[in-house]
Amino acid sequence: MNTSFKDQIEQFKNQNQNRGRLLVSCPDQPGIVSAISQFLFSHNANILESSQYSTNPEGGIFFIRIEFECPGLKEKAASMEQQFIEIAEKFSMDWRLTPVYKVKKAAIFVSKELHCLQELLWEWQSGDLMTEIALVISNHEVARDVVEGLKIPFHYIPANKDIRQQVEEKQLQLLEEYDVDLIVLARYMQILTPNFVAANPNKIINIHHSFLPAFIGARPYERAYGRGVKLIGATSHYVTNDLDEGPIIEQDIARVDHRANVDTLKKIGRSIERSVLARAIKWHVEDRIIVHQNKTIVF
Amino acid sequence: MNTSFKDQIEQFKNQNQNRGRLLVSCPDQPGIVSAISQFLFSHNANILESSQYSTNPEGGIFFIRIEFECPGLKEKAASMEQQFIEIAEKFSMDWRLTPVYKVKKAAIFVSKELHCLQELLWEWQSGDLMTEIALVISNHEVARDVVEGLKIPFHYIPANKDIRQQVEEKQLQLLEEYDVDLIVLARYMQILTPNFVAANPNKIINIHHSFLPAFIGARPYERAYGRGVKLIGATSHYVTNDLDEGPIIEQDIARVDHRANVDTLKKIGRSIERSVLARAIKWHVEDRIIVHQNKTIVF
Amino acid sequence: MNTSFKDQIEQFKNQNQNRGRLLVSCPDQPGIVSAISQFLFSHNANILESSQYSTNPEGGIFFIRIEFECPGLKEKAASMEQQFIEIAEKFSMDWRLTPVYKVKKAAIFVSKELHCLQELLWEWQSGDLMTEIALVISNHEVARDVVEGLKIPFHYIPANKDIRQQVEEKQLQLLEEYDVDLIVLARYMQILTPNFVAANPNKIINIHHSFLPAFIGARPYERAYGRGVKLIGATSHYVTNDLDEGPIIEQDIARVDHRANVDTLKKIGRSIERSVLARAIKWHVEDRIIVHQNKTIVF
Amino acid sequence: MNTSFKDQIEQFKNQNQNRGRLLVSCPDQPGIVSAISQFLFSHNANILESSQYSTNPEGGIFFIRIEFECPGLKEKAASMEQQFIEIAEKFSMDWRLTPVYKVKKAAIFVSKELHCLQELLWEWQSGDLMTEIALVISNHEVARDVVEGLKIPFHYIPANKDIRQQVEEKQLQLLEEYDVDLIVLARYMQILTPNFVAANPNKIINIHHSFLPAFIGARPYERAYGRGVKLIGATSHYVTNDLDEGPIIEQDIARVDHRANVDTLKKIGRSIERSVLARAIKWHVEDRIIVHQNKTIVF
Repeated sequence: MNTSFKDQIEQFKNQNQNRGRLLVSCPDQPGIVSAISQFLFSHNANILESSQYSTNPEGGIFFIRIEFECPGLKEKAASMEQQFIEIAEKFSMDWRLTPVYKVKKAAIFVSKELHCLQELLWEWQSGDLMTEIALVISNHEVARDVVEGLKIPFHYIPANKDIRQQVEEKQLQLLEEYDVDLIVLARYMQILTPNFVAANPNKIINIHHSFLPAFIGARPYERAYGRGVKLIGATSHYVTNDLDEGPIIEQDIARVDHRANVDTLKKIGRSIERSVLARAIKWHVEDRIIVHQNKTIVF
Repeated sequence: MNTSFKDQIEQFKNQNQNRGRLLVSCPDQPGIVSAISQFLFSHNANILESSQYSTNPEGGIFFIRIEFECPGLKEKAASMEQQFIEIAEKFSMDWRLTPVYKVKKAAIFVSKELHCLQELLWEWQSGDLMTEIALVISNHEVARDVVEGLKIPFHYIPANKDIRQQVEEKQLQLLEEYDVDLIVLARYMQILTPNFVAANPNKIINIHHSFLPAFIGARPYERAYGRGVKLIGATSHYVTNDLDEGPIIEQDIARVDHRANVDTLKKIGRSIERSVLARAIKWHVEDRIIVHQNKTIVF
Repeated sequence: MNTSFKDQIEQFKNQNQNRGRLLVSCPDQPGIVSAISQFLFSHNANILESSQYSTNPEGGIFFIRIEFECPGLKEKAASMEQQFIEIAEKFSMDWRLTPVYKVKKAAIFVSKELHCLQELLWEWQSGDLMTEIALVISNHEVARDVVEGLKIPFHYIPANKDIRQQVEEKQLQLLEEYDVDLIVLARYMQILTPNFVAANPNKIINIHHSFLPAFIGARPYERAYGRGVKLIGATSHYVTNDLDEGPIIEQDIARVDHRANVDTLKKIGRSIERSVLARAIKWHVEDRIIVHQNKTIVF
Repeated sequence: MNTSFKDQIEQFKNQNQNRGRLLVSCPDQPGIVSAISQFLFSHNANILESSQYSTNPEGGIFFIRIEFECPGLKEKAASMEQQFIEIAEKFSMDWRLTPVYKVKKAAIFVSKELHCLQELLWEWQSGDLMTEIALVISNHEVARDVVEGLKIPFHYIPANKDIRQQVEEKQLQLLEEYDVDLIVLARYMQILTPNFVAANPNKIINIHHSFLPAFIGARPYERAYGRGVKLIGATSHYVTNDLDEGPIIEQDIARVDHRANVDTLKKIGRSIERSVLARAIKWHVEDRIIVHQNKTIVF
């Protein structure tokens, strides 16, 4: 990582050493917000942003995301987590408390099409994507120059379906070595094994080049052209073992007309893929997403 | 039809008695535009708007739509058509020459959900949809008041899949009686038989409440909810015998988030369905659409 | 009001007799959410949806909207309000607690263009806009039939700038008589006096036919055409005494191209005006809007 | 320019050596299309795409853009231009005939914000923007590395309003030296003198960071924040001597809400600025734009 970006990250960490986020989901009942907010108040935390949603007033699921400022958070975080367990157990909560200064580490997987990688690198360089890009893994060499030019480690691991297992072993080893929190498939074009996916639940984000569930699988632009659609789209989703069936994080579309051939669709599509993936990654990195029953709540 | 709208139509016919449209598709080769434009010039026609598109410079298909002003068109139209045959044969053209003053006659089919019908009636009343609404056919009585209130004939024909053939016989008879050019399925919710479809090629326009090819078939909003999509849409298309597989005319979408339940999706969706269907009908009525190999060219 | 809609409102009131909304804004400090949520919990209220936002972690303004379910709300509402005063004073809150079963009463002002009125009536008839349309006031007779056809009182009050004061006296009298909570200017095209506006702070919602602050004032479509813009828009805002300068609630746009003349812009614009106004009214009616320093927070 | 892109350009030139574009505007009358298409046919040209538009059937202005394939164009172009003069004079045409293989040469002017430059470089590298980027001129050094890394000449010319004339003299000299057809102000942030503008009519394209005519002039995001708009936008236009008043080529917007502060608006805005400018440049480079009375016809 080059120095100027290291400085940016350090500055961000300093500015956010008291900033925390609490995400909770649990069966709905009265008293949850009261218990959580009293807990935060008792630690002198000021709630800056809070979003809450319940699936159903009766017998539904309760979801909340709170961003707060808490003096001395760095020192208190561990004990706060410890003390929150009591509340969590009382309400049967799934929860996480994440200090904002712990910047997430991402691995980006790419193949030969670099536009999604480029967008992420760009957002990252301009300080708009606050994550550490720990490494880039590719089954091709084309991305090496741009990645290493930014002092980001680049790992070339040739891949095809016959050697999938060995490839993934190497990849998993690298992910562990770099202590990665998030895997971005930025048009990686290789299918992952159930093992790999199971090892990284809700941590792998893919960009699919269609508005799912239309055009699941290969060659969506060719099929969009064949069908004569007037809109093309892109979908970012968490990866599960059902191809292109994981929880959708974000989608967008662009209008096209009869003059567009497959190449034109691909060109127009690139720009949607770029922005849809970038938004999804930002929301993930800012702890805005809760996954529930193959859907996302995006706060 | 009430008098004020009759006046509007008469006024439109008077204003457009010299206005014509020529639509052509044929194998591409040099000289087509030249031949057509010389033909029009020789009849003193002034080209007001012309859009042309070829699928491929070599061995492709040529499409053109020309709107022109031609003094005395009303008297000349038949002889122009006669004379155009020579050019058409030379270039193996599919073509039609439509005088604008011949306002198209539409039949609207509805079921119980009236929002699409309402939108069309509204556009029609405000003079934005220049067609004669010859009649409304429904398998329910709910639309009767609003339709008859506008002095449009309303025909109640109960329908279900067991009596499909008798129902369609009655419908076809009415379409003939009213000399209908266009059939709009404004959320009609009944499947048409191959016979009915074959009798009305590229004349039946449907609105489907999803961005096709996602959620083909029944209950698309329920399935969109189940899948957790972040966009919902609507698609207007010509009806063929493959369910929801006909040539797409127009599509649009709206963003939704995790707070939307099925009812909310339906409410948001209604407004997209309304505008997508209205645009498709207008383009059809203005002779802007050429169907080619299950796709539409919309000029 | 016709009976079927009266039934719909009664049903809604019954379903929501325990549903309340609390809106608060105050200087930010720790403990606000805790105090509010404890208060609600102490009344057995279950928080269903909560949105919060602070302008600034230090010295900023805190805003929250909470929707809750509280058994026996109808009986308890007055005493809850009474008890909340203590919290409100402690934190210097602006606040309101609104029971959902108290459906708001709206007056719609129109002139000769009826598309915005029609959209509201339609949403209202289909149960998507949960308000009582208490009366329609117009300086023209054109809307009478459609309004009275729905059994809504229609008041014709001719207006022009010379008799502004007498006109507004009549209007204010009617608003009092019908106990109106909300005034919708659905393309009313008359300027209101400072007196009238002062009497109805944050209660008058206007639709302006441009994306403000572009084309403030009269004839925005003509000026959009003159400027050759590629987008046209509409803006819904609360009315203040600065023409078209009040807090913006919602805006939207549509793409246009060089082929659009002023009439086409108006036609396209109508559909944006309709949906922008309808969304703004719904948000107001659902108590989703807080006005702060000439801006809106829309939860 | 690096070799791989040189190859791309050479390949494009080879593929398009017979491809030409004819743009015409003139007073409308019958016979124009006929004369043009006969002319093209007489040179064996096949019309691939043609778009035409008239402002008014009677006494209006006629515009047409034709893209054609003409064997031996490279050799014939000059004599075709010569022969077309007769038709042009007969109909009082403004016209240009541009061979596609003559790739346009662009100069990009930037200041410190590089996102628009980056987008153009990116589109250019991926072959989506078929122009020669002849040079980049900046009043800051920040862009040097990225520009020279792509083997594009970079010229640093410090600028401020006191030395405007000397600066522009140097710039005009460079533009002549590099034989530039198009000047892109990719967030250049300096005002040009009437001299400079007059020397380059309809050849300077600017990106303004608002949906014009809203927020003309400086600091549009700050003013958008102050006004509390719910949409922000960007506008690409030809530069004239009225600040931000030149013919609009393209505009787009993004939705924002109350949570966005000025910095957020700028981040969101960058992505709109990038795509709006890129589309405008592409349309210019593909000879899709005709300027008429401070408006653009974009075919």
